[in-house]
Amino acid sequence: MKEQLWQNILYVRKNSPLVHNITNYVVMNNTANALLASGASPIMAHAHEEVKSVVAISSALVINIGTLDNYWAESMLLAAEQANDLGKPWILDPVGAGATAYRNEVLAKLIMLKPDVIRGNASEIMSLANHNISGTKGVDSIHQSSEAISAAKSLHEHTGSIICVSGATDIILGNGQKVLIANGNPLMGKVTGLGCTASALIGAFIGTIPDKLEATVSAMALLGIAGEIAAENAAGPASLQLQLIDKLYNISETEFYQLLKIEIGS
Amino acid sequence: MKEQLWQNILYVRKNSPLVHNITNYVVMNNTANALLASGASPIMAHAHEEVKSVVAISSALVINIGTLDNYWAESMLLAAEQANDLGKPWILDPVGAGATAYRNEVLAKLIMLKPDVIRGNASEIMSLANHNISGTKGVDSIHQSSEAISAAKSLHEHTGSIICVSGATDIILGNGQKVLIANGNPLMGKVTGLGCTASALIGAFIGTIPDKLEATVSAMALLGIAGEIAAENAAGPASLQLQLIDKLYNISETEFYQLLKIEIGS
Amino acid sequence: MKEQLWQNILYVRKNSPLVHNITNYVVMNNTANALLASGASPIMAHAHEEVKSVVAISSALVINIGTLDNYWAESMLLAAEQANDLGKPWILDPVGAGATAYRNEVLAKLIMLKPDVIRGNASEIMSLANHNISGTKGVDSIHQSSEAISAAKSLHEHTGSIICVSGATDIILGNGQKVLIANGNPLMGKVTGLGCTASALIGAFIGTIPDKLEATVSAMALLGIAGEIAAENAAGPASLQLQLIDKLYNISETEFYQLLKIEIGS
Repeated sequence: MKEQLWQNILYVRKNSPLVHNITNYVVMNNTANALLASGASPIMAHAHEEVKSVVAISSALVINIGTLDNYWAESMLLAAEQANDLGKPWILDPVGAGATAYRNEVLAKLIMLKPDVIRGNASEIMSLANHNISGTKGVDSIHQSSEAISAAKSLHEHTGSIICVSGATDIILGNGQKVLIANGNPLMGKVTGLGCTASALIGAFIGTIPDKLEATVSAMALLGIAGEIAAENAAGPASLQLQLIDKLYNISETEFYQLLKIEIGS
Repeated sequence: MKEQLWQNILYVRKNSPLVHNITNYVVMNNTANALLASGASPIMAHAHEEVKSVVAISSALVINIGTLDNYWAESMLLAAEQANDLGKPWILDPVGAGATAYRNEVLAKLIMLKPDVIRGNASEIMSLANHNISGTKGVDSIHQSSEAISAAKSLHEHTGSIICVSGATDIILGNGQKVLIANGNPLMGKVTGLGCTASALIGAFIGTIPDKLEATVSAMALLGIAGEIAAENAAGPASLQLQLIDKLYNISETEFYQLLKIEIGS
Repeated sequence: MKEQLWQNILYVRKNSPLVHNITNYVVMNNTANALLASGASPIMAHAHEEVKSVVAISSALVINIGTLDNYWAESMLLAAEQANDLGKPWILDPVGAGATAYRNEVLAKLIMLKPDVIRGNASEIMSLANHNISGTKGVDSIHQSSEAISAAKSLHEHTGSIICVSGATDIILGNGQKVLIANGNPLMGKVTGLGCTASALIGAFIGTIPDKLEATVSAMALLGIAGEIAAENAAGPASLQLQLIDKLYNISETEFYQLLKIEIGS
């Protein structure tokens, strides 16, 4: 798989998949810029009158519930159904899962539609796997990704989705494989919405690459390594955000493989 | 016209027109910052209860359908009608024209209200001029601006609006004149919403300068040159975005005229 | 109070209060990043189905009417009532007060719910204190903060809220005290939404520090000083915004007290 990761990054740049995002207000701009920098083409659209048409022209769909309300929840359901009908891959980002009953209800409906990939932080994945966890705190994780491994396994068994738990070590599970990526930098947690960026990039990769697990690993490795390089000379989180977008655009194969810390198992 | 362009930039700085934006979620922050950096004063407002009042206190109106839905479409129609009633200039940015039937329907209603200026990329202008073009791809153009000249002419004849097609060479048509601007840098296409920024700046200029074609040319020249300078030392698209906003703020007359590549014809 | 200000900054970093923001589309990203950089944890949520639950898990609530409509106004009222019921502190940012009758109506309802703090620019505070002022211009102030002192006093008497008027000199009034802070830089006025950032930071501080006036002073001093340092080497407003977020993250006690220009009176 390792030697394929960089090829996948090049595929995205070459094919420039159109990625339909139904996402939250906080991250729309950064998400769009991360997609463009990586070579994909973003479109944001949520009107009930057009979401199905936009899914139809897109290569993949990204659903992120960060600032949802009933209108947007309906948009998400319409779009996910359409993606399923047309065989388009889609990813669910369950922002703030467990924080409110309302989010849990909407997430239950979305998960029944069987997303190809679910990506969240440890607290979100643990909440999805078991609605009785305690101690969730808004949209930021209070758990380590390692704590979430068994939750990820049970969520994968329940949904069939590839599960990606992002954290100090990212965990990607599915197809009988388990991949760990140890790239990134703690300062990335001080930038709003880098988890959302991760989900959007996964959207770009599953829109181009048939193997959804490998696509997810490629996206997470790209973001982790770009973030790691960006953090090196960052005076703070805003510098990191800027340098991360630039690095998604100009990262080289050498930089990528020099830093890649990956463990592929089962 | 050439010697007037810099004067127009100074007029905007001096008069600081209030520009009412009904625009998309992705670009609101950058649009507001570009307007402030250029000396204008942005206001974003979409509530049906207040759009007419906001138009009434503003110098110009910018309508951008990037993330529209029915509520926002109605806001746009109310605001455009009010602008017409009060003789306030307004510009339409038809983001994603041709991508869905829904966008085309809303655009048809807006165009019937005769915007003073319409600015889009080549694919959008070609779509507006002729709803049967093929190959539109989301919100990014797949056509060169030069391919759009005859579409721009026919759209101008149909609407009476100044037509601005942005691209490697910007084309501004109307009042029996045709102006070409060859400033900018391809990296600008990797920054989300610079087309939207262009439309917002045109809003600021038509809010201050009576000759709408000259106002549009001034705004496009300013953005193209600022982007060209910003791209010079940019490591990637995020650096470009940052340096572009700074340059809109601190550009000098010398920088402006040294780089200006303009062709004024008919 | 002076020696307590830095302790308060450290408290926020240590306690990482969850801050619920019902705010405008333009500033959501920057607001979230400013909160994260200062050590707080932001959550944005507006759905009627969940706003009360989000208030319940949060340390403080920030209400900002910048891009309001009826749905969001109702979210704000529900959240403010819940904050009052649960004894959670909240702050109101009356963006564009006086610009339209609609904003004034919504503000009248919100003010009746007695926010712990109201922060606005001079024009906004003068408008809230007296609906008959003339000459408001959109969302940017056309008055000096010093002109607003008597308006702030009468608004404080009417509401019981701590009143914060931001400007070249920030004025914080309440509890029989009046504090003036003369930090900051005029270039901050060219960055969209730094007033909104101020309100969000006040939210973080009142969510942790029992003395609401001291909390407000701490937040305003932090932002003013960080902005002053950020402006020093800024080529324009975008550099300032980036360096400001970085500085909120890495500011030291020495930097803070070397620059602090404060006057504590009654």
